[in-house]
Amino acid sequence: MAFPPLDFSKDRLKLLDQRKLPGAVEWLECRTAEEVVQAIRQMVVRGAPAIGVAAGYGLYLGIQNFEGRREDLLKLLEEKAALLKEARPTAVNLAWAVERVKKRVLSEKSRSADELKIAALQEAEKIREEDDRLCRAIGKHGARLFKAGETALTHCNAGGLATSGYGTALAVFYTLQEEGKAVSVYATETRPLLQGARLTAWELTQSRIPVTLVCESSVASLMRAGKIKRVVVGADRIAANGDTANKIGTYGIALLAKAHQIPFYIAAPSSTFDFSISSGKKIPIENRSSEEITEGFGKRTAPAGIRTENPAFDVTPHKLIAAFITEKGVLNPPYSKSLKVLRLSNDS
Amino acid sequence: MAFPPLDFSKDRLKLLDQRKLPGAVEWLECRTAEEVVQAIRQMVVRGAPAIGVAAGYGLYLGIQNFEGRREDLLKLLEEKAALLKEARPTAVNLAWAVERVKKRVLSEKSRSADELKIAALQEAEKIREEDDRLCRAIGKHGARLFKAGETALTHCNAGGLATSGYGTALAVFYTLQEEGKAVSVYATETRPLLQGARLTAWELTQSRIPVTLVCESSVASLMRAGKIKRVVVGADRIAANGDTANKIGTYGIALLAKAHQIPFYIAAPSSTFDFSISSGKKIPIENRSSEEITEGFGKRTAPAGIRTENPAFDVTPHKLIAAFITEKGVLNPPYSKSLKVLRLSNDS
Repeated sequence: MAFPPLDFSKDRLKLLDQRKLPGAVEWLECRTAEEVVQAIRQMVVRGAPAIGVAAGYGLYLGIQNFEGRREDLLKLLEEKAALLKEARPTAVNLAWAVERVKKRVLSEKSRSADELKIAALQEAEKIREEDDRLCRAIGKHGARLFKAGETALTHCNAGGLATSGYGTALAVFYTLQEEGKAVSVYATETRPLLQGARLTAWELTQSRIPVTLVCESSVASLMRAGKIKRVVVGADRIAANGDTANKIGTYGIALLAKAHQIPFYIAAPSSTFDFSISSGKKIPIENRSSEEITEGFGKRTAPAGIRTENPAFDVTPHKLIAAFITEKGVLNPPYSKSLKVLRLSNDS
Repeated sequence: MAFPPLDFSKDRLKLLDQRKLPGAVEWLECRTAEEVVQAIRQMVVRGAPAIGVAAGYGLYLGIQNFEGRREDLLKLLEEKAALLKEARPTAVNLAWAVERVKKRVLSEKSRSADELKIAALQEAEKIREEDDRLCRAIGKHGARLFKAGETALTHCNAGGLATSGYGTALAVFYTLQEEGKAVSVYATETRPLLQGARLTAWELTQSRIPVTLVCESSVASLMRAGKIKRVVVGADRIAANGDTANKIGTYGIALLAKAHQIPFYIAAPSSTFDFSISSGKKIPIENRSSEEITEGFGKRTAPAGIRTENPAFDVTPHKLIAAFITEKGVLNPPYSKSLKVLRLSNDS
């Protein structure tokens, strides 16, 4: 079982307000494109795939109340699409989903206004269904790597909350649960923003998967004590050689896994591979504000004016990665071969 | 320059209230043994050496107002010693310092009551001076390992605040500064209790040593980027073979240092070596409460009822340690030889 962070019915998009987790489970109802834009901007919904799905529905909501001529509907469609795409300009999935719904409508523009609205909703549903299918395929391929009853470590939140509900790294755990191969999970709290504590621990608890929350600082001693059999994390971007950018802390965990001979896996859809980048050295790393470290809990915990370094991501060299778990299957080393095959399949 | 967390003058022990750091610099004045007991119990003062020094003065304060017969003074001395030793029963330095002041007074018991009071104060001063001398010797030996201008990483607080003012791991940095060999420091925030953010970052800032605060999760990528040349941390207990118990996270940092070929040093007085324990496997590790992780900032940041593992310490195998920096000199591998020599010198 997983926990979908959004639900669409009766022309309303309900979004789980992730800012309030884990303290409160509150749903925000959006009836217009503008409300969806607000929700994306304010991070009620987060995670590239989930944002894409929400934006798809958002474009339908932008036109669903329209009454009038077809030409005016198409004008409105363009306006709302532009509005949605600006909600978070760097989120690639957002623009992609909005464009996809728009194109679908335009491809049927000889039909009636009502039919065009239905086409928009159908395409939004399709995006959600595809994301779900893709996550479940990742889960299925990943689960084959596990024996029943093993304990895995994950970092940050590559979970249902970041997708249409089934996650990427966490998809592996949901599949293991569904297949009756009990799994238990260590989740790092994931400083500075605590996505592990706030989101991963919460969604695994909701799904009744046994989860133990730990500070990053105890990962090495847990590994040494034999308590962790495998590591599964997500990815933000994967270079052509397999070097992988993910939440800060991932590279350290990969090194610790190597030192303890524990397999370290990346679970991500094939769209995460960026074949235009030859290696991890070319992936730019965002540095974020000091306050995330020094006042992350609404309370100052470090001297005023202290210098910090707060990179949001790090790059794990492909040599530390035991396998990539994608919706198309598990990619094993040597990556110079297996990623070339994936590239051909992505291009097709 | 370092920052002494206590000061004694005019029959008053002033303690820097470390619970209020880094938000406020407040000094608590103790005029009686009872007030010192309260301060130790409530962790106004922390760190085994600093607690020992405070307790020594505490015993003097316990008898300094006494007027009357010498026999009654000695009775009072016993009472106050017992009281102080109970302040934190597990702190070895506390009992050791109290006993030492008591013995000094008893060794001169044929003298007048006023002379006995002075003997107590002299012994308390001597404990403080010895701790300072020992920390400075550690600093001097450690500084020789550095080239000018290098950047080091430290973890938790093995600093002046935990001693009479000069620290153990941080003593190395203070010495480098005094010798004009500029050093800059990365301090981990040290989850869950944030001693790095609250204490180390604060005392290094006070001493004008350039310090950058980072989450544990970014240590690996800082090392890979070549930003860290050496690691220096303290120790809670060192086994006869060199395996070292220290704040949780130390073992992981030692492994990451090894992977990046960065020397990893332990700075600690020779009294930290416990030759009754053959290896790190025999060092018991304290597990602490969930709330330190889930509500560490006065605000719940994880789901209610979540399971946690919160070990306070980990053990770093001696093979990962490039050298031990003690007041008696730098001990290099092979430790089967160098620690044997230290043991003989400790026994003498």
